[in-house]
Amino acid sequence: MVSKFPVIVGHEATGIVESIGEGVTTVKPGDKVIPLFLPQCRECNACRNPDGNLCIRSDITGRGVLADGTTRFTCKGKPVHHFMNTSTFTEYTVVDESSVAKIDDAAPPEKVCLIGCGFSTGYGAAVKTGKVKPGSTCVVFGLGGVGLSVIMGCKSAGASRIIGIDLNKDKFEKAMAVGATECISPKDSTKPISEVLSEMTGNNVGYTFEVIGHLETMIDALASCHMNYGTSVVVGVPPSAKMLTYDPMLLFTGRTWKGCVFGGLKSRDDVPKLVTEFLAKKFDLDQLITHVLPFKKISEGFELLNSGQSIRTVLTF
Amino acid sequence: MVSKFPVIVGHEATGIVESIGEGVTTVKPGDKVIPLFLPQCRECNACRNPDGNLCIRSDITGRGVLADGTTRFTCKGKPVHHFMNTSTFTEYTVVDESSVAKIDDAAPPEKVCLIGCGFSTGYGAAVKTGKVKPGSTCVVFGLGGVGLSVIMGCKSAGASRIIGIDLNKDKFEKAMAVGATECISPKDSTKPISEVLSEMTGNNVGYTFEVIGHLETMIDALASCHMNYGTSVVVGVPPSAKMLTYDPMLLFTGRTWKGCVFGGLKSRDDVPKLVTEFLAKKFDLDQLITHVLPFKKISEGFELLNSGQSIRTVLTF
Repeated sequence: MVSKFPVIVGHEATGIVESIGEGVTTVKPGDKVIPLFLPQCRECNACRNPDGNLCIRSDITGRGVLADGTTRFTCKGKPVHHFMNTSTFTEYTVVDESSVAKIDDAAPPEKVCLIGCGFSTGYGAAVKTGKVKPGSTCVVFGLGGVGLSVIMGCKSAGASRIIGIDLNKDKFEKAMAVGATECISPKDSTKPISEVLSEMTGNNVGYTFEVIGHLETMIDALASCHMNYGTSVVVGVPPSAKMLTYDPMLLFTGRTWKGCVFGGLKSRDDVPKLVTEFLAKKFDLDQLITHVLPFKKISEGFELLNSGQSIRTVLTF
Repeated sequence: MVSKFPVIVGHEATGIVESIGEGVTTVKPGDKVIPLFLPQCRECNACRNPDGNLCIRSDITGRGVLADGTTRFTCKGKPVHHFMNTSTFTEYTVVDESSVAKIDDAAPPEKVCLIGCGFSTGYGAAVKTGKVKPGSTCVVFGLGGVGLSVIMGCKSAGASRIIGIDLNKDKFEKAMAVGATECISPKDSTKPISEVLSEMTGNNVGYTFEVIGHLETMIDALASCHMNYGTSVVVGVPPSAKMLTYDPMLLFTGRTWKGCVFGGLKSRDDVPKLVTEFLAKKFDLDQLITHVLPFKKISEGFELLNSGQSIRTVLTF
């Protein structure tokens, strides 16, 4: 995402409301909350449409300010920008009311913070955007934290077969632990992955998810779902300013190709529901959290992530 | 579509069953029927999937024979191929049971024949593939016979605004007659059509339909539906062996892009239902039929079509 500097980054967190501004009615001091990088104003076209979620207040252009055009951070007297309406790598932040959701007081903050982005993005892609049907066969390309969350969503939706795909076989064990029924590497066959999957499933792949952000894999994922009734969901962020080239016959015969931000979920409506479902043990976030570090070790956390050692490192104050 | 020669072409028709082969149970001599270029065997993956319709028995590769591998036509002792399991430019044809649907005896054959392809392809694209919601705004690119049928489908689904688009303004009157609420030509503005439509609708185009078969228009149609909750349906047949290039961010932000054959309809299930709906005056096929000619004037019919004078010319025996 684009951003203006200087900036306080970070967007996936939990917090406690310290104080509220004039007119705020949906949260009060002491509430346990999740900041929402995708706001929900409930008034724009996207918020009013049942299938929409990309609220007009989303800071996709990286303005780095709140809805009123101001920044509420300063450092040595100079303004510091907000990041995606949240700015969570800090002990105190300021957010618009449309960018915060009250959650159940019983929720463990060091776990449900993942519902603020990574988990929901994958889980929602399966249950809300893909609308995976019970008994179906799903394929997930890319087994990072979001890919694992897609698997959890497919499992929750009742998929009977969930095939994980990654070049790194070290990721297979965790994928199986969260719900994959089998895992394969494209390197294990000289055939195109779409053919391999067709043969494995009797030509019956209902849903594919691209959770990497590579153009080639987006085409592979599209080609791998059933030519007539398959749905392919783009979850990975495409590289900017790169064009994608494909044979339109892939679509014409009946496939559905769709994308989503935040798993297609409406943030203020769905985040509290997901927290409640977590408390009811509908899914397990522990599988996604590999490290917990004090906030002052944030750089160590990024190293763990970049080196592939960590799925999610949770920072605590 | 590909075809082997010599062949009896033609695929949109009505007929009366003259005789049946061994084991046929769903039609009997005397039944009024519509031949189905898209069969429905009810046994393959596509037939068993609620969202599928591209039956494995479809002759998309142009084998030109029936399911048992034989041709039932000869001319001067030499075999003549079938076309898309139907071959209807003839007084007598032979079809598989999976390629024929019994329809209401009261149906006027010279009208409901359109339900065998053109009408259903457009109408189904709106009601079945696009799943147009009541109150939504729809845009139809291309106002030929199938485009007009898309408009009728959008109207039937309860769309509150239906915008027809064509370079040929002569087509606007008929489009308005079948349900378009307004029509525009891309030539009337120097802006991209997606911008024109966004301004016209307050950035609220729910559904777009490409009914031309041009790659450029497919991208325009995708870009013209709402970036987050819009759905774009490819109805026009893409040029073969041409690749389509687009910015994947168009999809990533939430759009849905899908294609369909025969409007996503299940032929044996849905064709009789559409005939019944026609008899109940749910839609009007007269608007699509501009000429009726005796079969011997078939070449004149093609001239009317190619010169743009005719939407549909019905041939009668």
